[in-house]
Amino acid sequence: MSASPDGKSRSQGGRSAIGVGVIGYGYWGPNLARNFAESPDCELIAVADLKPDLAALARRRHPASRVTSDPKELINNPKVEAVIIATPVSTHHALALQALKAGKHVLVTKPLASSSEQCLELIGEAARRKLVLMVDHTFVYTGAVRKIHELVAKGDLGDIYYYDSVRVNLGLFQHDVNVIWDLAVHDLSIMDFVLPKRPVAVSATGIAHVPRGLENTAYLTLFFDDSVIGHVHANWLSPVKMRRTLIAGSKKMIVYDDLEPSEKIKVYDKGITLNGDAESVYKMLVGYRAGDMWAPQIDITEALRVEAKHFAACVSGKEKPLTPGEAGLRTIALLEAATRSMHNRGQPVELPALHAGR
Amino acid sequence: MSASPDGKSRSQGGRSAIGVGVIGYGYWGPNLARNFAESPDCELIAVADLKPDLAALARRRHPASRVTSDPKELINNPKVEAVIIATPVSTHHALALQALKAGKHVLVTKPLASSSEQCLELIGEAARRKLVLMVDHTFVYTGAVRKIHELVAKGDLGDIYYYDSVRVNLGLFQHDVNVIWDLAVHDLSIMDFVLPKRPVAVSATGIAHVPRGLENTAYLTLFFDDSVIGHVHANWLSPVKMRRTLIAGSKKMIVYDDLEPSEKIKVYDKGITLNGDAESVYKMLVGYRAGDMWAPQIDITEALRVEAKHFAACVSGKEKPLTPGEAGLRTIALLEAATRSMHNRGQPVELPALHAGR
Amino acid sequence: MSASPDGKSRSQGGRSAIGVGVIGYGYWGPNLARNFAESPDCELIAVADLKPDLAALARRRHPASRVTSDPKELINNPKVEAVIIATPVSTHHALALQALKAGKHVLVTKPLASSSEQCLELIGEAARRKLVLMVDHTFVYTGAVRKIHELVAKGDLGDIYYYDSVRVNLGLFQHDVNVIWDLAVHDLSIMDFVLPKRPVAVSATGIAHVPRGLENTAYLTLFFDDSVIGHVHANWLSPVKMRRTLIAGSKKMIVYDDLEPSEKIKVYDKGITLNGDAESVYKMLVGYRAGDMWAPQIDITEALRVEAKHFAACVSGKEKPLTPGEAGLRTIALLEAATRSMHNRGQPVELPALHAGR
Amino acid sequence: MSASPDGKSRSQGGRSAIGVGVIGYGYWGPNLARNFAESPDCELIAVADLKPDLAALARRRHPASRVTSDPKELINNPKVEAVIIATPVSTHHALALQALKAGKHVLVTKPLASSSEQCLELIGEAARRKLVLMVDHTFVYTGAVRKIHELVAKGDLGDIYYYDSVRVNLGLFQHDVNVIWDLAVHDLSIMDFVLPKRPVAVSATGIAHVPRGLENTAYLTLFFDDSVIGHVHANWLSPVKMRRTLIAGSKKMIVYDDLEPSEKIKVYDKGITLNGDAESVYKMLVGYRAGDMWAPQIDITEALRVEAKHFAACVSGKEKPLTPGEAGLRTIALLEAATRSMHNRGQPVELPALHAGR
Repeated sequence: MSASPDGKSRSQGGRSAIGVGVIGYGYWGPNLARNFAESPDCELIAVADLKPDLAALARRRHPASRVTSDPKELINNPKVEAVIIATPVSTHHALALQALKAGKHVLVTKPLASSSEQCLELIGEAARRKLVLMVDHTFVYTGAVRKIHELVAKGDLGDIYYYDSVRVNLGLFQHDVNVIWDLAVHDLSIMDFVLPKRPVAVSATGIAHVPRGLENTAYLTLFFDDSVIGHVHANWLSPVKMRRTLIAGSKKMIVYDDLEPSEKIKVYDKGITLNGDAESVYKMLVGYRAGDMWAPQIDITEALRVEAKHFAACVSGKEKPLTPGEAGLRTIALLEAATRSMHNRGQPVELPALHAGR
Repeated sequence: MSASPDGKSRSQGGRSAIGVGVIGYGYWGPNLARNFAESPDCELIAVADLKPDLAALARRRHPASRVTSDPKELINNPKVEAVIIATPVSTHHALALQALKAGKHVLVTKPLASSSEQCLELIGEAARRKLVLMVDHTFVYTGAVRKIHELVAKGDLGDIYYYDSVRVNLGLFQHDVNVIWDLAVHDLSIMDFVLPKRPVAVSATGIAHVPRGLENTAYLTLFFDDSVIGHVHANWLSPVKMRRTLIAGSKKMIVYDDLEPSEKIKVYDKGITLNGDAESVYKMLVGYRAGDMWAPQIDITEALRVEAKHFAACVSGKEKPLTPGEAGLRTIALLEAATRSMHNRGQPVELPALHAGR
Repeated sequence: MSASPDGKSRSQGGRSAIGVGVIGYGYWGPNLARNFAESPDCELIAVADLKPDLAALARRRHPASRVTSDPKELINNPKVEAVIIATPVSTHHALALQALKAGKHVLVTKPLASSSEQCLELIGEAARRKLVLMVDHTFVYTGAVRKIHELVAKGDLGDIYYYDSVRVNLGLFQHDVNVIWDLAVHDLSIMDFVLPKRPVAVSATGIAHVPRGLENTAYLTLFFDDSVIGHVHANWLSPVKMRRTLIAGSKKMIVYDDLEPSEKIKVYDKGITLNGDAESVYKMLVGYRAGDMWAPQIDITEALRVEAKHFAACVSGKEKPLTPGEAGLRTIALLEAATRSMHNRGQPVELPALHAGR
Repeated sequence: MSASPDGKSRSQGGRSAIGVGVIGYGYWGPNLARNFAESPDCELIAVADLKPDLAALARRRHPASRVTSDPKELINNPKVEAVIIATPVSTHHALALQALKAGKHVLVTKPLASSSEQCLELIGEAARRKLVLMVDHTFVYTGAVRKIHELVAKGDLGDIYYYDSVRVNLGLFQHDVNVIWDLAVHDLSIMDFVLPKRPVAVSATGIAHVPRGLENTAYLTLFFDDSVIGHVHANWLSPVKMRRTLIAGSKKMIVYDDLEPSEKIKVYDKGITLNGDAESVYKMLVGYRAGDMWAPQIDITEALRVEAKHFAACVSGKEKPLTPGEAGLRTIALLEAATRSMHNRGQPVELPALHAGR
């Protein structure tokens, strides 16, 4: 296992593993570090964290990696080809920009940055340098969400009617972002991945129960240009943990409960049938169709393992990112609009047309 | 069992049972008729329904009652002291007004009427004639909601933080009212009963998936004048039936699942504790408190049985209505405001100050 | 709709409805009376109960039927062609025999009688007189059990491996039969209906927690002549109510939870696969197969409605009883053997070969 | 206790950590190794596994420990004061005996050995040498089981009526022991810990669905000398995983569901009340009492962490083992009797009086 002068390292069956460095070893960083370390396509070259105790922990768990308190040192390490950023949101932009400017591919934990402007700058920088810029929208890489995407894409659900999600638990109150930036962002990234349409406006409401605090309970409605609606209930102050999403279509309906140990996705052959005179609501007959329920087996590979493999393939030019910087931008534009609406008691906010496609 | 000239009938242990008539024997009417018929305080004198098959059914089940197709006949029956109205919403006002003008006490199924104006007229008429006007907010009479009211009133929950309800199922699409008038009205009536504060504004969003139809999926946020928020998700197009409410307070939190066969209410000794400098959100430490869970035994008497007894006591002047016309008015004012907001994508609507207290 | 001299009554579309009488209006009798009264193929001619309050209740609910305190009068009523017996077990034999001797078809609630001998006598009497003798094994007529029967019969489950049932709740302690005669009898009747094999021996254990009482907690194992095993846990002293059955086969496995409001049956595409050398257990490789889960829609018609219709068809000679006297006999032979085993701490008891086929 | 040249190691705040070695790094060994490595009272000196890939894995995870393929080397390592044995059951006795003879304290994963005789030999050897011999009955160290023990010991449940457990899942078929030695052993160890009585006889039934295989589905009834009964359903061939135990007493009843993420233990204020003439079962009235349910908060510390700390305290002479060799012996005597009964279709087997107290 020797590094070649061009920074490529660990040769595996004729091809090189990609050297990665992880900045931030707090809550999520260890999971990223572990998955990239165990990925056959990557080699964990370095880990950086400012806190001595976290650095020590990283050192113990990854004795073969270089552990430092200095992100700059990690970024400039010639063996590091790709930088994974798992620090507080407020530092994402600066670190990612630095890494891109140093010619490194970048993967950033969600949300990508603190503002649309920051996202646009990162996207531009990555494009100019032909580097991969990816956001860690983890749920997109779970077996459950990939299965939902497949069912929607194949048309099994028919026309989509709504996406409704409840994502609540007790804690962890954040000091720098409100609950929609922390929790609802997951649902926004899932909708961005599975729904065939983009939202055009948003209305949000919420409340802070902590003096001078950020909103800890919030409700978000997304409007689309046709008969689709999206809704997220995000809450840090719930007595029970819930992760339950309903996705209804004209043909089938899905209940996705991420806390179910086995049957996370249930597909219901249920719906309504319309008869009679559609011109007059009073003459129209609404029938109810109830058939079998089906829980497809889903891949239980850890999402970050799938994501690490995909990121490596993107860096190698073999795949296109499923969650590129543009997905991060779209999500953040929504979060910005929602926060604005929330400060005006649900006043709807139009969304900018973001031409950055998938 | 003989009727006396003053219209009082069935003497029971020295006191008279109240003669009641039920108008409307469709979906809910049979439940009202059965409960009033079985109530020791009342006597079911008459039933009216326009549809011959429903009238025939009523006749078979209540052979001792007078069944008619003419509401007017029922209202003018001198043995009928109180009229129960279980017809479509659009007919509530006219029938209730007619009954009040005939000097009868009135109980109307929810929602009380089609508009605030109609409610005000009924309230005025009842007041002038010193008659009981009550709205059938059924959930208020369940053991579960009475227990929640008790826990809130005793201060066990501390300061209320939020009320969040999900009330969804497949069907039954209504032709004359949208889903918030049909389903969310239950939660509005529960909040009206259990919360110590009144909402000041509302923001609602929703969508109709049936061409030219009324909204079948809706989200409703209620704003209060302090750090309380209310939210209802009402939906006729859900693959699964859910009736689940979270009520959080500073001391305790409740999960109320009306579909649970036994433990409908779970009280969690969970919450947050604030330490540090409340002046600065960055210095403030949010702690999480997790203790025991407790599911109090609740009275399982059928709600309408309790309600029938209470209505009889109100007619006899022994009790004050828990759900008077004013409660119906407050609920309808909310539904009107919410519908207006929903047609403007969540644009918040201020609520009128309704001075009609409890 | 007038009764003809030959005892046939209510003519419906050219054919006569069968006149039935129900003896016993306590716990289960009202359900039988209601379903037979509402069945288009039958007419509820009479109801008998010794207790005045129950007779009065029957009179109120079935004003068109003749209510009596004398079973003999009911049996001898010439309009009564079929007698339904819903009295305590100890009276089943005498009443059923009396009815058969009077030339009436008979349906008896489970268990059919107090002993195998009694069952044999009833079966013989019915056969001699060419009368229908049926036992009310209600679960056999539910949509769930009929679906399980269908899946097993079609071979979807492959070879059956086991039937395991938990049927527990708090109460209702019986004074005349132990818990296996009260609760396990349901599972024995379901197994009798759905399994392709008959048990050859039984081992049972149990305990009475009430002084001088009958066993309230019991465990029953049924042995078959090949690799099938059956087990029932019956309990009157459980803090929670459970009705959960596992049925495993070589191809598919079923979880049947009768308390589930909607998906009562879940079919799992799970199992084991055997590879390697079957001669040596140490070389044999057991693989685990996990596929989709499927919850078929099931007919939700009330079981007694289906049963009433089927009984009428049997009386008319159009169908053969699914639960004939012989099914009752097989079940009781099992209960007798199990009770004997239970009094000997699980000592196995061989079952008699009951040649009475299906 | 300071580190001397004779093998005492890592000094922590003035006292020495106990040097431990783990033999077997397959399924359970890694969990033991990790917990002992992280225990402040212990130091993981060595790990042994015959399989090169498992040894390599151990080396990677515990770079500071000596990893070997030779158990003898580990046992004879002077720094190893205590040996943890996590190998297949058939090897437990030989390895444990070797370790005890080398003067080492021993902790063995369940079941302690392959027979009562082996257990007795180990217990004798440990006693003679004044060494700790402990069996890893892991569940005894969980917060849930410790809470149940506390509730039973305090008398909160009243007189114990029964212990009923369902422990089923799909796989993992063992080649050397049947399902009761693999799964039911957990319940036997829990009963041994929480129940105030010892069983006097056992009846068991079971079946093997794999040709020439060991029983994969089994039912076990334990008889006590009074009105207590125990039952375990153990199954490797279930479509769903279940870990659900009912423990009923005269005052309270417990439902313990180990798969519940939060409320693992629910305590029901339910039961029966006896009135009337206890001399005659027919005159005795059984009443049903239903009160609140309560889910106490339980300690969620990982069981092996608690166990490692306790084992270290036992080695240091500060505590007495909660699960000594004698607990292992009692459990194995039960497994032997149950297996014998199972081979005779439930024929009851008396249990030897094991005077080894707690």
